[in-house]
Amino acid sequence: MNRIGIDMMGGDHAPLEAVKGLYSFRQAGNQATLVLFGNEPIIRSLVETHLPDDKHIEYVHAASVIEMHEHPTKALKEKPDASISLGFKYLSEGSIDAFISAGNTGAMMVGSLFTIKPIEGVLRPTIGAYLPREEGSLGVLLDVGLNADSKPENLNQFAILGSLFAEHILGIPEPKVGLLNLGEEEGKGNMLTQAAYTLLKENTRIQFIGNVEGRDLLVNKADVIVCDGFTGNVVLKMAESVYDIAHRRQINDAHFNRFNFEIYGGVPVLGISKPVIIGHGISHETAFKNMLQTADRMIRTNLIGSMATQISI
Amino acid sequence: MNRIGIDMMGGDHAPLEAVKGLYSFRQAGNQATLVLFGNEPIIRSLVETHLPDDKHIEYVHAASVIEMHEHPTKALKEKPDASISLGFKYLSEGSIDAFISAGNTGAMMVGSLFTIKPIEGVLRPTIGAYLPREEGSLGVLLDVGLNADSKPENLNQFAILGSLFAEHILGIPEPKVGLLNLGEEEGKGNMLTQAAYTLLKENTRIQFIGNVEGRDLLVNKADVIVCDGFTGNVVLKMAESVYDIAHRRQINDAHFNRFNFEIYGGVPVLGISKPVIIGHGISHETAFKNMLQTADRMIRTNLIGSMATQISI
Repeated sequence: MNRIGIDMMGGDHAPLEAVKGLYSFRQAGNQATLVLFGNEPIIRSLVETHLPDDKHIEYVHAASVIEMHEHPTKALKEKPDASISLGFKYLSEGSIDAFISAGNTGAMMVGSLFTIKPIEGVLRPTIGAYLPREEGSLGVLLDVGLNADSKPENLNQFAILGSLFAEHILGIPEPKVGLLNLGEEEGKGNMLTQAAYTLLKENTRIQFIGNVEGRDLLVNKADVIVCDGFTGNVVLKMAESVYDIAHRRQINDAHFNRFNFEIYGGVPVLGISKPVIIGHGISHETAFKNMLQTADRMIRTNLIGSMATQISI
Repeated sequence: MNRIGIDMMGGDHAPLEAVKGLYSFRQAGNQATLVLFGNEPIIRSLVETHLPDDKHIEYVHAASVIEMHEHPTKALKEKPDASISLGFKYLSEGSIDAFISAGNTGAMMVGSLFTIKPIEGVLRPTIGAYLPREEGSLGVLLDVGLNADSKPENLNQFAILGSLFAEHILGIPEPKVGLLNLGEEEGKGNMLTQAAYTLLKENTRIQFIGNVEGRDLLVNKADVIVCDGFTGNVVLKMAESVYDIAHRRQINDAHFNRFNFEIYGGVPVLGISKPVIIGHGISHETAFKNMLQTADRMIRTNLIGSMATQISI
């Protein structure tokens, strides 16, 4: 049975919302063994209340927590008994198959890149975000901030990683890949996108449909949209703010409500050799459930094996 | 009296909507002499219907039109009798004080950069866009596409040009300048924004408030937001699409309605030595009126003189 590790102490509403997330995950019929990292007495008592008869829950006691404000590298070094530190230790040793946390994002990044390491051949791992499209489906945008300065060959790899994610996790066969650009025609763009276009066009491992523009981000034009991490970060935060504005203005619209990125619970770090999911600090029950399901699907579909194969071709 | 030249043949709804724009401009009490470039018999008959007694309208007959699909440089060279070509000729000779067109954008760019030329000291002219903020005011974002690859010193000049525009045209005293970035803290960013931050911080001609993020674009945090033309273009088109989506979904909200950029009628090319305004192809009456008012205000406030002074310091 798949073994999913989860940091029960990470996020603004942990551990209660994390426990509720476990419950939702089970209610949806998921089978994986759940390995809970955190303060065991506290977590055990909550779990025994919410999931009294669950036989597939294990505990790894963590004597400390990396707080949100702590310096990632320093904290990981100085707190080997923290829930995030232990999670990465177990993941790297193969004692769990995936690790999830809504805690200190920086520590999760550092752990992903330096304890887990990239898949061989991956130049730069990446983090994506879901793109809610008007007709109800999800696309994926990457990179959204891990690589503020990206190179053309990075974008080309993001396209491969994102396509496999869209196929395995979002269930989109032969996902269409678009290059975020300032015009539709070939030849348009800045130096980065002009060079990336050539690589993407020649890449036989993806379905490249050409340039897409800012106006195409929220419609069903491309399933995977690649860009440098600077642009992706600005776009993602702007989309989040559209939800905030709609919410403040009491606009209750099914599509704009899907810009509430909290519900998706964070997306995996793509391009590293084990499944790691970094959640939003404000994660609630649904977000935790969604992260658990994504991790479970990543393991079951062997997403990382497919990535390793595709990157090595 | 100020002399504003307007291409009556440019845009999808010219010349009728342009003529209606002249009417609206007059109704709002504006005095400038209007110099109309285009097919004189057609325009004259429309003007005599809509503005029968206007003594301050002059005509410059243009025997041809640069169509939307034409190659800008080639068309300007081969059609010296087109309305855009004549407009730039009159502007460069000083026969008009400003020129407006909703026609071929490329031709307007080429004319602005090569017939009119940059203000001395301006490294790269820029085009901005209005940013509708939630509390009802407008900010300005620049560059939105003229400079796909920008340098730190370009962003620093955009900040000066944008501040003067915000002050003179939007009426914002001491406008706050933000640098669009992927995090708020100093030191965050890609190579461009890290370097630009230092220049902006040391620039005593602007009120620099530091980094702003994607989520700050549509709220009242900074009055002037600077970024490279690639990012600005993506952001602008995404904001336009938010309006389109809201419109399709029959969300009638005062704030989202202001994302309909067509109403603003285009913003000036900033950093060139004469006032030029490039309108959206789909410009209607209000857009033409707004462009005329912006041109009139640019002349009256001597925006370009202020820019020349500030850039030369």
